Amino acid sequence: MSSSVLYMSMSLDGFVAGPNEGPGNGLGDGGMRLHEWFFEGEPTEHGGVPGRPGGVNGEVMDELMATGAVVSGRTTFELAGGWGGDHHDGVPVFIVSRGELGPEVADWPLVTFVDDVATAIARAKEGAGDRDVLVHGVTIAHLALAAGVLDELQIHLVPVLLGGGRHLFEQPLAELPELELTRVRDGRGVTHLRYRVHR
Amino acid sequence: MSSSVLYMSMSLDGFVAGPNEGPGNGLGDGGMRLHEWFFEGEPTEHGGVPGRPGGVNGEVMDELMATGAVVSGRTTFELAGGWGGDHHDGVPVFIVSRGELGPEVADWPLVTFVDDVATAIARAKEGAGDRDVLVHGVTIAHLALAAGVLDELQIHLVPVLLGGGRHLFEQPLAELPELELTRVRDGRGVTHLRYRVHR
Repeated sequence: MSSSVLYMSMSLDGFVAGPNEGPGNGLGDGGMRLHEWFFEGEPTEHGGVPGRPGGVNGEVMDELMATGAVVSGRTTFELAGGWGGDHHDGVPVFIVSRGELGPEVADWPLVTFVDDVATAIARAKEGAGDRDVLVHGVTIAHLALAAGVLDELQIHLVPVLLGGGRHLFEQPLAELPELELTRVRDGRGVTHLRYRVHR
Repeated sequence: MSSSVLYMSMSLDGFVAGPNEGPGNGLGDGGMRLHEWFFEGEPTEHGGVPGRPGGVNGEVMDELMATGAVVSGRTTFELAGGWGGDHHDGVPVFIVSRGELGPEVADWPLVTFVDDVATAIARAKEGAGDRDVLVHGVTIAHLALAAGVLDELQIHLVPVLLGGGRHLFEQPLAELPELELTRVRDGRGVTHLRYRVHR
């Protein structure tokens, strides 16, 4: 049974991006520290992108990369350069946006723009088959929780204080879902907490 | 070596008290849910106060009750009725307050009011000997972090969203300390995360 899962790195003070977020500083001041666990692997021989981290962090990364579809907001998509049109392994990518398609996506057959988050997650689940759906981004997380279509939260809790920036839960929800902690994994420099969302 | 340790229950969205905190609603709406892990034990035969919870939660509670002194702010002290003058086991209690002593504390030899948090923690460490010092309250946590006298954070992370209220880290720190996660314990309905503060 496919599950829609938000994967999100968060500081102990609740921020998913540091202060002074903006063009050229997409993660905010210090925000890169939230993602170090993901990039702790050795650089590959081709340089640039580091390899898979070891231990628990590598296993969590494997789970993320084993998802069968991706749902993201437009801002995340654009900040990431659209992942070059292929987030991972050729799985379908659904971008929630009411805006026009940019010319770049015309050549990206894996990428589909849809109007609303519920449709995005429904179509992503169809595309993912038995695999989970990877959900990206604060705005999409909020919309998906509000629409009742987010099944799980995978919070990578990083032992750092950012002191400001963007909170994961900064927008109030009209109805607060119940959470159930289903797994704790203690990785190097990060605690992976997985929650099921009950509505 | 004695360590000053903040023990604090926090929701996944970072709140230590829910919305609409006030007289008669000291923990805010839903705030009691943050403390259920502490009160999950069976009521004692005398009723009222429940007993020690089982498992990991009981062990964490034992650590808290094994501290050799307490430092708290005046608000927490007053909300708790001054713990009747004895927080636990007759250990000394230091309340950070510039205000006047209320008449009730005249009969409480364990309770001392001091002007500033650094003095409170220094005196509490003297009183605690080899044992740790229990630190209570959001304001005191902030002051102690800012003054560089908080050694550890013991965060009891509860899988609940409160959607509003009082954030543990709502006041910005001029200098952000570094944190090191030293322990993760998975209790029933709560994840106990212990961090060392590096300055």
